[in-house]
Amino acid sequence: MPGSRLGRLFTITTWGESHGPALGVVIEGCPSGLELSEEDIQRDLDRRKPGSRLTSPRKEQDRVQILSGTFEGVTTGTPISLIIHNRDVRSRDYSGISRLYRPGHADRTYEQKYGLRDWRGGGRSSARETAARVAAGAVARKFLQVRGITVKAHTVELGGVRAQTLDWEAIGRNPLCCGDEGAALKMEERLLEVKRREDSVGGIVEVCATGCPPGLGEPVFDKLDARLAGALMSIGAVKGVEIGAGFESARMLGSEHNDPVLSRGYGSNRAGGILGGLSSGMDIVCRVAVKPIPSIGREQQTVTRDGTPAAIRVEGRHDVSAIPRIIPVCEAMVLLVLADFILHPFPWSPPLP
Amino acid sequence: MPGSRLGRLFTITTWGESHGPALGVVIEGCPSGLELSEEDIQRDLDRRKPGSRLTSPRKEQDRVQILSGTFEGVTTGTPISLIIHNRDVRSRDYSGISRLYRPGHADRTYEQKYGLRDWRGGGRSSARETAARVAAGAVARKFLQVRGITVKAHTVELGGVRAQTLDWEAIGRNPLCCGDEGAALKMEERLLEVKRREDSVGGIVEVCATGCPPGLGEPVFDKLDARLAGALMSIGAVKGVEIGAGFESARMLGSEHNDPVLSRGYGSNRAGGILGGLSSGMDIVCRVAVKPIPSIGREQQTVTRDGTPAAIRVEGRHDVSAIPRIIPVCEAMVLLVLADFILHPFPWSPPLP
Amino acid sequence: MPGSRLGRLFTITTWGESHGPALGVVIEGCPSGLELSEEDIQRDLDRRKPGSRLTSPRKEQDRVQILSGTFEGVTTGTPISLIIHNRDVRSRDYSGISRLYRPGHADRTYEQKYGLRDWRGGGRSSARETAARVAAGAVARKFLQVRGITVKAHTVELGGVRAQTLDWEAIGRNPLCCGDEGAALKMEERLLEVKRREDSVGGIVEVCATGCPPGLGEPVFDKLDARLAGALMSIGAVKGVEIGAGFESARMLGSEHNDPVLSRGYGSNRAGGILGGLSSGMDIVCRVAVKPIPSIGREQQTVTRDGTPAAIRVEGRHDVSAIPRIIPVCEAMVLLVLADFILHPFPWSPPLP
Amino acid sequence: MPGSRLGRLFTITTWGESHGPALGVVIEGCPSGLELSEEDIQRDLDRRKPGSRLTSPRKEQDRVQILSGTFEGVTTGTPISLIIHNRDVRSRDYSGISRLYRPGHADRTYEQKYGLRDWRGGGRSSARETAARVAAGAVARKFLQVRGITVKAHTVELGGVRAQTLDWEAIGRNPLCCGDEGAALKMEERLLEVKRREDSVGGIVEVCATGCPPGLGEPVFDKLDARLAGALMSIGAVKGVEIGAGFESARMLGSEHNDPVLSRGYGSNRAGGILGGLSSGMDIVCRVAVKPIPSIGREQQTVTRDGTPAAIRVEGRHDVSAIPRIIPVCEAMVLLVLADFILHPFPWSPPLP
Repeated sequence: MPGSRLGRLFTITTWGESHGPALGVVIEGCPSGLELSEEDIQRDLDRRKPGSRLTSPRKEQDRVQILSGTFEGVTTGTPISLIIHNRDVRSRDYSGISRLYRPGHADRTYEQKYGLRDWRGGGRSSARETAARVAAGAVARKFLQVRGITVKAHTVELGGVRAQTLDWEAIGRNPLCCGDEGAALKMEERLLEVKRREDSVGGIVEVCATGCPPGLGEPVFDKLDARLAGALMSIGAVKGVEIGAGFESARMLGSEHNDPVLSRGYGSNRAGGILGGLSSGMDIVCRVAVKPIPSIGREQQTVTRDGTPAAIRVEGRHDVSAIPRIIPVCEAMVLLVLADFILHPFPWSPPLP
Repeated sequence: MPGSRLGRLFTITTWGESHGPALGVVIEGCPSGLELSEEDIQRDLDRRKPGSRLTSPRKEQDRVQILSGTFEGVTTGTPISLIIHNRDVRSRDYSGISRLYRPGHADRTYEQKYGLRDWRGGGRSSARETAARVAAGAVARKFLQVRGITVKAHTVELGGVRAQTLDWEAIGRNPLCCGDEGAALKMEERLLEVKRREDSVGGIVEVCATGCPPGLGEPVFDKLDARLAGALMSIGAVKGVEIGAGFESARMLGSEHNDPVLSRGYGSNRAGGILGGLSSGMDIVCRVAVKPIPSIGREQQTVTRDGTPAAIRVEGRHDVSAIPRIIPVCEAMVLLVLADFILHPFPWSPPLP
Repeated sequence: MPGSRLGRLFTITTWGESHGPALGVVIEGCPSGLELSEEDIQRDLDRRKPGSRLTSPRKEQDRVQILSGTFEGVTTGTPISLIIHNRDVRSRDYSGISRLYRPGHADRTYEQKYGLRDWRGGGRSSARETAARVAAGAVARKFLQVRGITVKAHTVELGGVRAQTLDWEAIGRNPLCCGDEGAALKMEERLLEVKRREDSVGGIVEVCATGCPPGLGEPVFDKLDARLAGALMSIGAVKGVEIGAGFESARMLGSEHNDPVLSRGYGSNRAGGILGGLSSGMDIVCRVAVKPIPSIGREQQTVTRDGTPAAIRVEGRHDVSAIPRIIPVCEAMVLLVLADFILHPFPWSPPLP
Repeated sequence: MPGSRLGRLFTITTWGESHGPALGVVIEGCPSGLELSEEDIQRDLDRRKPGSRLTSPRKEQDRVQILSGTFEGVTTGTPISLIIHNRDVRSRDYSGISRLYRPGHADRTYEQKYGLRDWRGGGRSSARETAARVAAGAVARKFLQVRGITVKAHTVELGGVRAQTLDWEAIGRNPLCCGDEGAALKMEERLLEVKRREDSVGGIVEVCATGCPPGLGEPVFDKLDARLAGALMSIGAVKGVEIGAGFESARMLGSEHNDPVLSRGYGSNRAGGILGGLSSGMDIVCRVAVKPIPSIGREQQTVTRDGTPAAIRVEGRHDVSAIPRIIPVCEAMVLLVLADFILHPFPWSPPLP
């Protein structure tokens, strides 16, 4: 089954390997009449770029190009094709490990599924694939903006250090996008320490959507939370998703968990802005568990393609944590799900005026 | 957008309200030649039934009937239509609250979406809707059995009490389906205590699938974990989903999290049986956070449909916890996702012999 | 791949065999707030009923029942489940031919696909399956009515006799639903003559939709004409579909075929109301070629299941022509396609007021 | 609803306008392990190229480039992205008519749907969009070849001249791809005569698929003929589709139309290789009615965007007929539908060996 497509009305189809000539995305269903420029998209792509001492020193100069779907700076309603050329491809970084399975990677599962493997950097399982998601998410962001909806993510935990406060202003002021500047400093220290040990760490990212009207989502299998969970879990590094009080709900009483109903809105938001699978009008809040980057310089146990035990060190320019680069990717997934639902007509059937 | 359908090749479409004449499901894509009887389905439905003193005293005598898709006890490959008549419908239980929004319920969000509401028991947001899922899951279970795949769930936490061990035999011996019999006793006590307080509690359920071949799932958006997360989060009471080490991954180092690769299988299973979105051949392990039942006898704060503040007690025969009745529902969702993927041809293209 | 589902936003899933206990359809995506009764649906079902001396003498007393999706006579926006019990099932009519393949039927192709066959009357390939389409189409008709759209079909050719005029009033006055009463009489004669010969005949039906706003349909693969062609060709007896001037276009010059553009509308309608796959605001006009009923009393050449040549006469109560009973089926398919497109928001993106 | 996607398992998503920088297609679901080169695709693209005196003198030097999905000359099972740069774009050819609606074109319907229009050559309604279909079809052809299936189309009627014979060898020897060389000469004469009159003509193309195993297709709405009809009718110039005896069936008796069943195959092929929506193992035969090219030099009646009556002559380099350039497009649509069905597992459920 094809798996590179997301959405029903606002849909995206991504393509491309990390070591091919380019990667990209076709966005279908974006309404016409929306102002859209390459700069609108580049802004989000740049947030995914490596660059600081905390992230990979690779110089991915991702420049996005719009190949179709706009005319005189405005969307026409037809498919928007975006392309990002791969400029910094060095196959030699990977060739040494082409005969070994990297632990924590999809090397062997891809080979088992497809009978062969593009060993140059992971093919479609490479994190580089997420550049196309971010580009598409930026288009969704533009569309949702005109509807008054904004989506923003931040780091709530990294390498065991947890943010204690949430200052939205602070997020933009530290490289880890954490809303607690004190915690951000400790997270940085933790990252540098782990880097020295040639290891990696995980963390937790929270995504918030504000301005959603009530009623987004569909009953039963296409609940808003179900679609968000599926979209966020589709990010390679994500191993858990929770909405509102999430796993904490498991330890609460009904009387603690239920949000009091007020004439406008609710007295708390343990539901995370979703009731019965439909948005409630409160902020939509989800959190994802991000696993440690599997590529580490430390020696690990593996086997060769013919099954012989072997030791492996994954050399090369790897991030210590998927955070903060995963943050715009998380935002993109939420943006894309919301754009899909916002396009759906609310199914009332009054006669036309 | 229609939301009552799940799957691409092994698909189900559910229908029915808790207070209508019946509910049911149409299963399309189930292979032909599979032995299938109403008893096969009834077995799982009975596990969802209320009955013990721990669960709701309502006597839902759900009897499933096969209306199409089999001939002489064997599936024909055509749509299998299952119907369950609603026998124990008492609208008066709910009529008192038809003008109030129940906290933690979808009453107001449904009304905001559809402009009206079937106030008799929640309509499609009622937990009763899950009977159709369980019935469909039982058909998937039959199909997966012939492929050597089994799916089983158990309670790992309830009302703050956590299982310390997992004895698969024990699960069938206690009403809470817990693999730790000592913990099961404490969970029962906790439930009775909460029941006396007219409150409710949440918990955590773990689902395990054994026997899956490697390679199930699709890259990018239809990763096996993404589809499992979406399917499990679509259960009304679920607020979080995690795979393998899950949220614990966020606190681990790469060297701790990566499963060593052995010539056959892996040295551990922190990945939860899924690498790069494809099954690895190890057991697939997921856990869901179950929120407390929102319907409680204790007084809560709400408003009437015209916005006037009011107090509400949700009278009636409600469970104290969605556990254990949610257990076959969780199994059903995993069974349905696996059946969908197992039907998909592995995309190799050798010439036909 | 599941094939019993049609549509994307206004969707239907049909189920049931001609000789099982019932057949039915689940309609998902019908807007809420629409008045709907069983009588609304029964009206169209009755038009599909056999009864006159021109059609099969079987007494199918199809009574439709609404099992879900309405509350107090109004749709709620949730799945509408319709069931029609099979009352007039006589398996003995078919048992004599269970070991022979009926020419013109799907007996052998079903067996080749599924490895087995429900030989009682054709299973899902039975024309009886279309009752579910008609029931669903009646719901679409109610929905389109409030948008000012009506769909009506009539016979333009039968057994070689062609209508020369189109009087919409006349259609209701003759059993063959022909707009030319003189031709209708000749068609009746032709049918009786063919019936005496234990043979069957085909014909041509035209479907017209009036009141469609311009812009329905989607570019490229989901053009309105493409979706209409697919939906109409999915009727078992249909072997051809044409839009507007249709096959006649092949013999025309561009200067003859192009409809002059007027300030409101067009000077002619050779396009059949569709330009570039989008409705133009003119009447939508399509015609289908209906093949002769394959079940005939005359002796034909076939083989048994083990390949031995044999002669077959298909005894039983068969229609001489699929016309006129196919007429509400053709209408249903057009209604369902239009309902699906009308639900789709026109993709303009102005900010909300 | 997005309309630029076709298929369920072997899927394509096309994008691009005739006057943008490029157009292309993303193919998802093509099996891994298939040898594929740009030359394989270019071969079919070249057949769609203008060039002879019978077709448009524009020099479209379409060169296709594979951007993803292959590794060392073999498909990897991941999305195959193909791009064709637009080289011969001259906007001035169209600017004169940007304020007029061209008769027979989608100019006004697009504007009505999207609120704006890319007037440079028709955007997505341009015939140039079909280059992406042909490129994708060439990949499907490679895949079907290894399964022993071939698809070929030819001209059976053009400008009123009808082929009387079918010599498959002859098709490659005349520019109109007609199987009757005598008729081909008359067709050429007819085209030149129409060209002198600055007019255009239509015709009929027949597509044949050989080597299909029995059982392809799905019951009810996804019948093989239904999907073929939808796919072929989605070609802009097509106004009618018929299978096997097609519209001729309407005039036949059942005893004439039914194909005798033999122990292997059938005694005739009036069914066009499809029974009950499933392939029968006989050749699949469909025919499409192609309307005259709407762009003609002769003066026609139209209106300006503000509704003022006006005369229009569509200047520029236009073909006299969509035939023969539409021939590889028709083949591509049939190839894509067959590839989609061939990928689907036949739904038998024996236990694994």
